[in-house]
Order: sequence, then structure tokens, then C-alpha cells
Amino acid sequence: MINRVYNFSAGPSMLPLEVLKRVQSKLLDYEGSGMSVMEMSHRSKYYDAINNEAESLLRELMHVPDNYDIIFVQGGASMQFEAIPLNIHVNGKADYILSGNFSTKSYKEAKKFTDARAAASSEDKNFTYIPETTVDSFRPDADYVHICYNNTIYGTRFTKLPETPAGVPLVGDVSSNILSQEIDVSKFGVLYGGAQKNVAPAGVTVVIVRKDLQDKWSDICPTMLKWSTQIAQKSLYNTPPCWSTYVAMEVFRYLKEIGGVPAMQKINEEKAKILYDYLDESKFFVNKVNKKDRSLMNVPFFSPSAELDAKFIAEAAKEGLVTLKGHKLVGGMRASIYNAMPIEGVKKLVAFMKKFEVENG
Amino acid sequence: MINRVYNFSAGPSMLPLEVLKRVQSKLLDYEGSGMSVMEMSHRSKYYDAINNEAESLLRELMHVPDNYDIIFVQGGASMQFEAIPLNIHVNGKADYILSGNFSTKSYKEAKKFTDARAAASSEDKNFTYIPETTVDSFRPDADYVHICYNNTIYGTRFTKLPETPAGVPLVGDVSSNILSQEIDVSKFGVLYGGAQKNVAPAGVTVVIVRKDLQDKWSDICPTMLKWSTQIAQKSLYNTPPCWSTYVAMEVFRYLKEIGGVPAMQKINEEKAKILYDYLDESKFFVNKVNKKDRSLMNVPFFSPSAELDAKFIAEAAKEGLVTLKGHKLVGGMRASIYNAMPIEGVKKLVAFMKKFEVENG
Repeated sequence: MINRVYNFSAGPSMLPLEVLKRVQSKLLDYEGSGMSVMEMSHRSKYYDAINNEAESLLRELMHVPDNYDIIFVQGGASMQFEAIPLNIHVNGKADYILSGNFSTKSYKEAKKFTDARAAASSEDKNFTYIPETTVDSFRPDADYVHICYNNTIYGTRFTKLPETPAGVPLVGDVSSNILSQEIDVSKFGVLYGGAQKNVAPAGVTVVIVRKDLQDKWSDICPTMLKWSTQIAQKSLYNTPPCWSTYVAMEVFRYLKEIGGVPAMQKINEEKAKILYDYLDESKFFVNKVNKKDRSLMNVPFFSPSAELDAKFIAEAAKEGLVTLKGHKLVGGMRASIYNAMPIEGVKKLVAFMKKFEVENG
Repeated sequence: MINRVYNFSAGPSMLPLEVLKRVQSKLLDYEGSGMSVMEMSHRSKYYDAINNEAESLLRELMHVPDNYDIIFVQGGASMQFEAIPLNIHVNGKADYILSGNFSTKSYKEAKKFTDARAAASSEDKNFTYIPETTVDSFRPDADYVHICYNNTIYGTRFTKLPETPAGVPLVGDVSSNILSQEIDVSKFGVLYGGAQKNVAPAGVTVVIVRKDLQDKWSDICPTMLKWSTQIAQKSLYNTPPCWSTYVAMEVFRYLKEIGGVPAMQKINEEKAKILYDYLDESKFFVNKVNKKDRSLMNVPFFSPSAELDAKFIAEAAKEGLVTLKGHKLVGGMRASIYNAMPIEGVKKLVAFMKKFEVENG
């Protein structure tokens, strides 16, 4: 007897049930191959088809222009925090906007390999807003400007992209908002993201690199971290994380079937509105994020006390509303409502919050 | 209707059918969690239990002594080719035994970060044997001596480990023979291997590091490549490749159930003997490897001509004996008979080879 929960985990997180069922049904024999995708050579015709379709579907879904390459690599966004300054290394300086935990982490890692500078920060108010910048906030000879597009832990996102000086590419971490909303790829030099929120099970990382940024690596960049290594081999330089890329392909197919990113964004906006509208009217729960910077994906909120937070989390879990505990840097609760969270899950959460407010308010 | 094949792929390769069935049955709901392992937070109690059990079972199966740590990381053995000289960097020199493709690749990658030297090589005879060394083959102030324990492409393996100078640790790539035979971990400073042959689906890499070798990194070693980063966090510094580690745990459980490495080694020796015995008596097929250096895992062989090789591969596939084409560096055929290849698969292959010899000899 299968009793699925609504899992509000910040990542790894829910996958579409339809995708899981498809994957399960083909697990012992993928399309007549007589083997699982977990068992097949990455040089086989079966896997080649998967790898190609994953790339072309992602290109289609995100409208990735022809002058960009897409690769599927290992290591997570954390590996890219170091790969970025090692791959784009011309003047040896780079500007970072610090809007949360991962942007700060990427900035600190970059310092080892480039003159990284914090061009703006919202640390003064515990990252509850997105810092404003102008073109003058950045060095004109910076190799790039880095942002984290959506901040998983603090629940903020950029609703307007920063303007960078002429010729300075924007690099964006889209781990927690890729495919959840329309993203104008042409505004970026590089986009990257771990798969485990909106794309696939953990273990694969998407990197989208404009062609003119593929030959600017530092001498000390390891071969395996060099984007050009995998671009030249279509992500097959060494054995890739086949299973994660395969599930990503199934997620891309499913997303296309339901209407692509515009349809998904509409659903996500609806889900977020249900939750934020209730938070704004509640006399009990509160979201502390600057309204215009609110994330569509991650919604931190608080009850009046740490004791009530703990009670809420425990009682919600009994109702099948799980992984609602906030990150330790923020506290309280956090509902991550990625693409695969059904609207019913958000409705059930809000209904439970209302009931909890009545009982404990 | 499921019609499984015998898949002789060099990797990714077969997984035990029993493991695949267990994984399939729990795919939508892992042990009452209401979610797939692909969906759960790596900080959840469920995944914590998986991560811990994978580590402790591998420690038990390989008799890993207490003064070694085990981590599960991303990037494959190829990433470790660079991680090794960046992690063990004291005198900035390292000696390599070149016994095939991957040992040569690791040597070439190491040159970027250390004074790597080829202490011995079997390239003169296209890597059909394991080069002999004595303690004097190595520099006494080398940071380490590196070997590839089993050579996947050329079908050789070390049956006797090289003696290194006092205090110089041996580093071994065990990608294609881990858990297939007893390995004396205490003879090594570091062992590492990609999972996709004997352990799990591609995407996770096992690294076993002696404690005294965990603080010798180079200044330019990226945080994500530093073993100590993941050791300190029990492989959870960033989001790990959860699914691959989970399947690894199921493989370890299964291996323990059937009697552990000694039982597996016995089966593997039996499988290899069936194939080599036939090759030695055949007037048609030939294995060109130095007999005493023959691999238990990878068996390259040739018919009298490239045309007959192609015919053999095509006809074998029709019988459900697939991925038998040899690597392009060697040609001919190659049967990879890893742990999960049943003895029935090897018997069926040999029966088919005999029939093919009669028909085409």
C-alpha cells in the first residue's frame, strides 16, 4: 500500500509522480534493450539517444540560443563555485552579489582563484531582500558578475536582472529556479544549477555556457572542471551520471507535455499566491521577506515562537506534510514548492496552517 | 514481457537482478517514507541511514581498517586522477606504473600538478602484461606510487602488488576490480574507484583514504576535490549522488547475503576459468594477454579476422549476448564479467563461441 506524502524539502525534492511511474515501469528493461538504464554503457545507442534528447529538450524548454552549449556534469553547484573562476579567468577579478547562503559560498570559494569582490550584499538584514545595483556597482574589467537567481534558504529571488558593464558577462546559479519560470538565457554568459530541485535526482548538474566563454580558463583549472572538456565530448568525456540524466530527460518530456515553462510558471505563481496570500492575512504566521523579492519556490515562515514552530512541524508531518523545518540559518518553517509539488499539496498545507492558527492563535 | 540480456559491457554494466527488483519495488515509497529515495533530503533520517549503512557495509566487506576513512563522492575516477596529486602534495613528485589506458591517463593528468614520472610501462607490447618493478624502481622521496589494479581495456591485473620505498604510500585505482576479489587495504594509502562496474550505477565514486594522508593537499586544490572536505562531513558536504549511493548500499547488502567477497571471488574465478580454458583450447579465438597477468573481470579476445569479429558480435547480440565489441584501442571482442554477470551468462557465451568456431573455423 503506497501512501505518498507532500514533501516540502528544499532539495532533493519531489519528482512528478508520473515520471517516477514511467521510470519504475522501465527499470528492468529499458525500451526493449533487455537492461536497466543503470546498467547500460554510456557509449550505447540507447544512452546516446537519452543524452541527446535531454540536451535538445532542455534547449527547447529554455529557448537556449545556438551560441550556447549545454552540458550535464557531476559535482553539483558547489563544484561550479570553483569551476567558474577557473574557467573564466582573463583579468583575474570577478564581482559577486551576496544575496544569501550559496551566493556567499560561491564568493568565498572564488576568492581562492580570482580577486573576488562583494559588489553588493543584503547580509545587513539577514538576506531578506535582493540588493539593488547599477552598472556602476561593478568593475568594468571584471571577468564576470555572479548572482544566485533564487535564494533557497532565505526565500528571495531576483525579479529584475542586474545590468553589468559592457562586455562583462552575467553568471547565474539557477539551482532552485531552473524551469520554474521563464529565464532569458541571452542575458547570461553562463547559467548553472544542480538538478535536485526542479530537474532530476541529485547527481547531475546543468551548465549552459556561451561559446565565447569556453576558452578563457586558468592554467590551474583541472581538466575535469574545464567546461570545454565536456562540451567537446557532449557530456561523455568520462562516464556520466547516466541515471540522473535519464530521469532529467523524462522530467523534460513531462514538462513539455503539460505545456512547457509558461504553463509551469503559471501553476507556480498560483501555488505561491495561495501561500503568500494566506501569510499576509494571517495574524499568527509571518513571512519576513521583502515582498517584491519573494521567491516562487521557497517560502520561509514563522509562528509566534520556536515552541509553536516545533509543534507545527510535528503535527504537519502527521498529516503527510513533511520536511517543513526551516534551514538552521533562518529557523522557523520553510515550504519549498518546486515544479513537482502539486497545487493540492499547497492547498492542504494552507488548510492545515489555518486550522493550526485557530487552535493555537 | 521482460527479456533480460547478458550484458558484457565494460561499464556501466550489469547489476544483480535481485537488487534491481528491490529498488524497483521501493521506488515510489521507500520504507514507508511516502517518497522515493530520489526525492528525499540528504539531511533526512532516511538518507542518513542509507549513507551510514553504505559506509559500514563497504568497510565490513573490504575489511577496511579503522585508520582509513571511506567517502562517496562525485566525478568518477577521472576526477580522482587530478584529486590525487592535489591531495598528496608534499615533495611534489609521484611515480606511476603505466599498465594501460587509465593508468596512463591518470599519469598525464597528474603531470599538471606534480612531477609525475613513469616508473615502469608495458606500452612496448600494447599493455598485454603488467610491468615488473622492484623497490628501486621508485624515487624514495616520491609522494606516492600509483597503480591501476585491474586494466579494463587491456584485460590485465596485478597479481602481486609493487613494493614501494619506506614511507611511500601506494595509491590504487580499483574501479574495475573492487569487491570482485580480496584486496588488502592495508597495503595502500589510498584506494579509489568509479562505481559503475561492481558497485552501483554511475555517478558515485568510492575513495578510501588512510588518515595520515588527509592533510597533505596543495594550496591550489579546490575545496570540492579535497578529500578532507567530504571526510569531515561524512560525504554530505554538499548534496551527494543519493540514488547511486543508495543502490550501492543495496548491492553491498546483497553481496553480504551471498557470502561476501570470498564467495564472490570464488564465483568470479570460476567464471573466468570457463572462458580462459576455452580460449586456451580454441583454434579460432585467442586471448593475447600474458597468462599470469590475466584479469578476472575483463577478457579481450579475437577471431582470425576483423570481419569475423564483426560477424561474431552481431550474431551474439541476436542470442542476447550483448556489448561484446572490444575497445577501439584493442579491437576484437571483450567480455567484461563483473560480479553481477551470472555464471550462466559466461556458459552461454562459451557455448555460442564454440558453435561459432565450428561454423566459421
